[in-house]
Amino acid sequence: MPRPRIEFWYDFASTYSYLSALRIDAMAATAGCDVIWRPFLLGPIFKAQGWTSSPFNLYPAKGRYMLRDLDRIARSRGRVFRMPEAFPAHSLLAARLALAIADAKLPAFTMRVFLAAFETGADIARRDVLEAILSSLDIDAATAFAAAGTSGIKEALRYNCTTAADRGIFGAPSFIAADGELFWGDDRLEHALAWAGTVSAEGNAQP
Amino acid sequence: MPRPRIEFWYDFASTYSYLSALRIDAMAATAGCDVIWRPFLLGPIFKAQGWTSSPFNLYPAKGRYMLRDLDRIARSRGRVFRMPEAFPAHSLLAARLALAIADAKLPAFTMRVFLAAFETGADIARRDVLEAILSSLDIDAATAFAAAGTSGIKEALRYNCTTAADRGIFGAPSFIAADGELFWGDDRLEHALAWAGTVSAEGNAQP
Repeated sequence: MPRPRIEFWYDFASTYSYLSALRIDAMAATAGCDVIWRPFLLGPIFKAQGWTSSPFNLYPAKGRYMLRDLDRIARSRGRVFRMPEAFPAHSLLAARLALAIADAKLPAFTMRVFLAAFETGADIARRDVLEAILSSLDIDAATAFAAAGTSGIKEALRYNCTTAADRGIFGAPSFIAADGELFWGDDRLEHALAWAGTVSAEGNAQP
Repeated sequence: MPRPRIEFWYDFASTYSYLSALRIDAMAATAGCDVIWRPFLLGPIFKAQGWTSSPFNLYPAKGRYMLRDLDRIARSRGRVFRMPEAFPAHSLLAARLALAIADAKLPAFTMRVFLAAFETGADIARRDVLEAILSSLDIDAATAFAAAGTSGIKEALRYNCTTAADRGIFGAPSFIAADGELFWGDDRLEHALAWAGTVSAEGNAQP
């Protein structure tokens, strides 16, 4: 029987995706579950819901609460959470780069982008910030940026965004088990891994 | 040192408040924490956010997900979740009754209203549904309904709604520790009780 697997859908601008990015690798390994990293953009999904920004900006009480909640959770895990000056970050370039680099480097790239954004508060829309991350992973930045600008990568990202909406995703992070079962939010990661362990990886999963 | 305490803010129409109502008593007892039951209405808060209905109605993908999530969680706790035909229920009368009956009966009344709504799918806006619950608790229904219609009770509920907004509440269930720390969602109940245990009940709590 193939190993269980779970898809991890995230937007680099998403605060709660940061929490999951830092822990999903270790948790999935413990659960004997493979992770498929699927960067996408929340923008088109929010726009379709009539939102012009993050709900944490649109609804100030919710935004204030989010900061407290993230701070408490990050601390409880020995981490810090820091809000970037510009929120939500413009995550398009980071997402395209994520699709342009080799799969084997995607988890580390993802974690470093999230740490830059929410541990150090850097602006991940900046080319120099992303260049430093690529270099730290021994990825040639010029090659990666060139690839990220091709129509193939742009199309791949659009495909991920469309697929996310088709699969029922409305926020991030989201997790999808091999049978298509959807889980939303860092606080559902444990549920998602437990569920993934009960279904065959051949399930009804879509590509 | 006084016992820790936590305020439990809920709307009888709130699906995730149902999950918390069924478990907060036992969990708080285990944690040595007192619970202050504070019924309120989400309607005015949602309206102030520009919402004309529950977000689960306004955002269909979120609504479909909520049903799966509630079903999974209820099952994992040996409970069932059933969506009432009319959602969200008109919870005004139930909330006024909750404020009209004796404090000692409020937890049991609350749990039975939630069970009627989300275990049996009854319409808790119906007077006969509420009458049966009152009678099952040996509360004189005629007296309770008369009290619920007084200006004092109406004002008490308006006060709860205003207070909820002032305390930063934007959804339900919400939990507030004695120092004013806010927690939102059934999935934060464990966090809220742990926090409450670390602060003096004299804290900076507001009435």
